[in-house]
Amino acid sequence: MAQPQVKIASDMSNKENPIDRISDILADDMTAVNAIIISRMDSHVPLVKQLAGYLIAAGGKRIRPLLTLATTAMFSGDMKRSHLLASCVEFIHTATLLHDDVVDESDERRGKATANLVFGNQASVLVGDFLFSRSFQMMVDDGNLDILRILSDASAVIAQGEVLQLTTANNIATSMDEYLEVIKAKTAALFAAACEVGPVIADRDETITRNIAQFGMNLGIAFQIVDDILDYSATREKLGKTIGDDFREGKMTAPVIFAIEKADSNEREFWQRTLGDRDQNDDDLQKAFKLIEKHGALKASQKMAGHYADMALSNIKDAPESELKALLTQLVTFTIEREF
Amino acid sequence: MAQPQVKIASDMSNKENPIDRISDILADDMTAVNAIIISRMDSHVPLVKQLAGYLIAAGGKRIRPLLTLATTAMFSGDMKRSHLLASCVEFIHTATLLHDDVVDESDERRGKATANLVFGNQASVLVGDFLFSRSFQMMVDDGNLDILRILSDASAVIAQGEVLQLTTANNIATSMDEYLEVIKAKTAALFAAACEVGPVIADRDETITRNIAQFGMNLGIAFQIVDDILDYSATREKLGKTIGDDFREGKMTAPVIFAIEKADSNEREFWQRTLGDRDQNDDDLQKAFKLIEKHGALKASQKMAGHYADMALSNIKDAPESELKALLTQLVTFTIEREF
Repeated sequence: MAQPQVKIASDMSNKENPIDRISDILADDMTAVNAIIISRMDSHVPLVKQLAGYLIAAGGKRIRPLLTLATTAMFSGDMKRSHLLASCVEFIHTATLLHDDVVDESDERRGKATANLVFGNQASVLVGDFLFSRSFQMMVDDGNLDILRILSDASAVIAQGEVLQLTTANNIATSMDEYLEVIKAKTAALFAAACEVGPVIADRDETITRNIAQFGMNLGIAFQIVDDILDYSATREKLGKTIGDDFREGKMTAPVIFAIEKADSNEREFWQRTLGDRDQNDDDLQKAFKLIEKHGALKASQKMAGHYADMALSNIKDAPESELKALLTQLVTFTIEREF
Repeated sequence: MAQPQVKIASDMSNKENPIDRISDILADDMTAVNAIIISRMDSHVPLVKQLAGYLIAAGGKRIRPLLTLATTAMFSGDMKRSHLLASCVEFIHTATLLHDDVVDESDERRGKATANLVFGNQASVLVGDFLFSRSFQMMVDDGNLDILRILSDASAVIAQGEVLQLTTANNIATSMDEYLEVIKAKTAALFAAACEVGPVIADRDETITRNIAQFGMNLGIAFQIVDDILDYSATREKLGKTIGDDFREGKMTAPVIFAIEKADSNEREFWQRTLGDRDQNDDDLQKAFKLIEKHGALKASQKMAGHYADMALSNIKDAPESELKALLTQLVTFTIEREF
């Protein structure tokens, strides 16, 4: 693995998220996307509408549809088509979240009760199916088979990645390759597809399109590794945010995989009991922190995230110069430098 | 509602299911469909493969893909395309069953433990998502936007119908119109789509295509009403088959809706307690039978099924004469005459 070229410049981290500036530039487009989302979530079945409305209110930064809008604008593609397809991307993401929360038995997301807790697992499964079907109806409205292929491929990859994650959870023998396969599938594939839609709308050649898809893929991998690092972050804990969710669920993420690689037999027993058997005491999370620290596992994870960030930077460097290109480039750096 | 023109000819019922004869005629095509199903269920994730294989082994009559094959053959369409698209139809159906069983918390289907019982709800939700995505990938391989529209529309309708069914369950004020809306969406929409794919492959005009889609819709409605009747059928009980599942779950189906329409206040209390509140004693199912019998609710349901069967017969009558047309016509009659 190459040395990361991206230096951690502490004066940049947590200052301004470039996604906020991208949102500002594309504010009218995001308004159009939100209008499409609201109108296409509509259903004659009241519960579908209610649950969908609840999800819209839950918000979030809508990073995926913003990637579609930004890559379309960057290549001067038809923004009207981009509005519709960015909405499809968000529908697929929302459907996945709904099913994820059922699968994980989650009861909170972004500080808000999950839909499965409020409306029940049954409605969450079925409304997820509806949003997923609806996104395909919208792609058919757009009428481009390449885009239908990109997004149906991504959806199939995501589902398989989620199943793979089920089978790696609580298995302390999970390798870094398996972990990377899971996060490529469950997170990065949709980032890649969201980015690829832009140059396809703009009818750019295969090399450009592939580079932008790869940009999304590498950005998504870096994003997920950092997300997994932050679940063990002391800074985050100081800010009063929840940490340790992955530990409690026995999820196999980069920090623990690095720590387990270097574990002695006592430590392996600890990981087997806490992550493998999910038999955890109150002070086990603190002990996990110490082992992760002892083996430099957070630093190793950060270095790995930096490696993917470098690749993302190289994937986007040939794109035409523009403010959006500069911001997408900053987004890569921000992604690996954010501390919460 | 018109009087049913289809007379119940007792010498025909339960003799030979025309679907068996259709399977014989299309045996080579079904072999091709099964080969596609097996090859496209393949995944590098072992659990996806295992669960998918379990579903294939569970079998069933595969009525939906047979409808696609039969309507394609009837209009001399390209059978190679039909094999792929019939497989898509079966994937969508299988995905719906997987999610249904999670939603219904079922533990048995066709006498076999459901996938959610064997592999867990999590895997069932995610493998359902995979099969659904995979079916869209296969439609993209086929490359016809009309077919992508037909099947994505059907999928969105099915999901909304399932949500509507959630909200009507245990609500004894459910009207017959609401019931019909549920079964149109959750069962008949996929029958309609499965049939419509045939004339679309064969590039037939809109009138023919619409008639064949309507044939599937009306056949599907009749099929589901009869299915709901059979859950209260004494003949079925005599054969040692399970009945009363819908009663136990408090599902609002034609027989109980007819019985509730004519219920006096004591009877309403009974239905509210048993279906609404699901507070049931051992002899309540027998009491439900008596009330259904007293108000002629099974006969009224059969008459309603007959009405849709008549419409299905009229929808198919202009199709070109062939053995398959004759068998599809017989299938309508068989559907409303079967006693188990």
